[in-house]
Amino acid sequence: MRASVYLGNETVELRELDPPRLGENEVLIRVNRAGICGTDLHIFQGHMDNRVLVPLVMGHEMCGEIVESPWDAELREGDRVVVEPTVWCGKCAACRRGYNHICQELNFLGIDSPGAFQEFWKVPLDRVHLVPEELGDEEGALIEPLAVAVHDVRRAGVEVGDQALVMGGGPIGLLVALAARLDGAEVLISEVNPFRVEKAQMFGFRALNPREEDLGACIEDWTDGAGVDLVFEVSGNSTAVEVMTDLVRVRGTICIVGVHPDPRKVDLHRMFWRELEFKGCRCYEPVDFDRAIRIAAAGRIDLKELVSEILPLGEARWGFEQMKGGGQVLKVLLDCQM
Amino acid sequence: MRASVYLGNETVELRELDPPRLGENEVLIRVNRAGICGTDLHIFQGHMDNRVLVPLVMGHEMCGEIVESPWDAELREGDRVVVEPTVWCGKCAACRRGYNHICQELNFLGIDSPGAFQEFWKVPLDRVHLVPEELGDEEGALIEPLAVAVHDVRRAGVEVGDQALVMGGGPIGLLVALAARLDGAEVLISEVNPFRVEKAQMFGFRALNPREEDLGACIEDWTDGAGVDLVFEVSGNSTAVEVMTDLVRVRGTICIVGVHPDPRKVDLHRMFWRELEFKGCRCYEPVDFDRAIRIAAAGRIDLKELVSEILPLGEARWGFEQMKGGGQVLKVLLDCQM
Repeated sequence: MRASVYLGNETVELRELDPPRLGENEVLIRVNRAGICGTDLHIFQGHMDNRVLVPLVMGHEMCGEIVESPWDAELREGDRVVVEPTVWCGKCAACRRGYNHICQELNFLGIDSPGAFQEFWKVPLDRVHLVPEELGDEEGALIEPLAVAVHDVRRAGVEVGDQALVMGGGPIGLLVALAARLDGAEVLISEVNPFRVEKAQMFGFRALNPREEDLGACIEDWTDGAGVDLVFEVSGNSTAVEVMTDLVRVRGTICIVGVHPDPRKVDLHRMFWRELEFKGCRCYEPVDFDRAIRIAAAGRIDLKELVSEILPLGEARWGFEQMKGGGQVLKVLLDCQM
Repeated sequence: MRASVYLGNETVELRELDPPRLGENEVLIRVNRAGICGTDLHIFQGHMDNRVLVPLVMGHEMCGEIVESPWDAELREGDRVVVEPTVWCGKCAACRRGYNHICQELNFLGIDSPGAFQEFWKVPLDRVHLVPEELGDEEGALIEPLAVAVHDVRRAGVEVGDQALVMGGGPIGLLVALAARLDGAEVLISEVNPFRVEKAQMFGFRALNPREEDLGACIEDWTDGAGVDLVFEVSGNSTAVEVMTDLVRVRGTICIVGVHPDPRKVDLHRMFWRELEFKGCRCYEPVDFDRAIRIAAAGRIDLKELVSEILPLGEARWGFEQMKGGGQVLKVLLDCQM
């Protein structure tokens, strides 16, 4: 069985592995499509070497088909499925408060244990969701990032008529914008990659490049000087953090969605002065996954439009390099059977 | 009439001023006691020279007696009163959302217009609260800082049994701790001034000096490794900001109460990872002022215990110097008739 294996030091290689052998309450899935996540790129670039063990099969955004299900009559061979890749302990301080999705002992499939960048993947059966027939494999592979966006928007507490700024127009930023719009918000996207600016505009969003246009003046004008109700910081960029507090209204909310490996300079005086709220947003709760499937199945968001390329499994490295380069790329999928 | 006047450059002087002449809907108050606030100290030290106009009569924590009330039959000469010193515009983006207390055009009496460090003070009559007879002048002068604490604790959303850390054991930190305890929280106070540590202990709190004891280990032990539910950052100190994110549990809340003039390095990764919430907390809403009066009148917090010294108006400078030095000082009151 072929698998794309991360070996450290910006290296992924196609390797031949033994097919997985199922343990108790596990099912085997043939992986049809798997998306490369920003987190996978972080791993590829070595930013998470202190967390991951190499060799690692990455991948947690996927869609596939059950090929072996000895433990559960409800999941049958041939069922098309997606995987919610969060396996929690049920006992830690987070789980005891109902925040299983950020369990302190979280086993995130594809990061802390083998993931979807292989022909066949074994997972705990209780992490599997059936995919409605309306959704193709490409759309299915985008359920997981859509669940992230649904979580962020729920956590932000969007109200109808809100004016929201999304900083960072990659796949997550765009999905956050789409989910916030479904929730009644008007959305402006700030993004430095021209390809992504154009893509955001194709989705009907106002989008601008803050290196070319004055984001502050634009928001001043758009909100009559008040500032936006909500900011979603999805870029992970330190400059975005420096300006975000200037752009939000009194008692507005800033959701920290992007990954900031180093401490960032934050204007806490502005946060105090305007009584701002910051909320860290990570992964999704089970209900967010359910909602993402329903939203996608109802056709309320056209997930296929986010896919910029589908590569054979063996060309995963090319996908990583493109994402790193920041060119004409949005969501890169791998065809794990090719 | 005598007034203590700030002239810039760490200088306050006793000066003879004409008695205030009332405008429409204003009342005249004889100021009995006035507290020196941390904000007054910031002004004294020149940190707010870009906001205040000199010469300025500071002071917004006070208790006094009506001596002239030509506009309102409900407020009579001889009534003992405190002043809620927030005068809002009613029209800005903050006011339109009901956040009058952080109005974008806020006239904060004693900062943006003359304050209470004088024998007689004229204020808009709708900013005046009657003081219940149970409360003396010293306690009355502490209503305003208690309203700050009530606001912070309401905004934090304290739940019964919460474990809370208050960073900074000055008057506001101590009042926050007292209000949080009333709301069912167990409180630990972190403070570097030994006099204030002792004072906190006298109030029955566990208090420690983080330069002498390991705050992280203490919280680890106290919370069984989970971290505290709530942090109140009242110190304004950059080291406190660096460690605060390590000390709070998954989905915990950090209230930013202290003033941080410069941007601070904040661990946004931890905030994301644990889905923390930060909330800026400034002043008080009208309801907080009402609650502070009720709490004080019911004797639920012994406000007198916070007063470390009462100085004649002419010795205001000595009060500022002591607060700046950080010695055996908690709340310094001025006797504005002496």
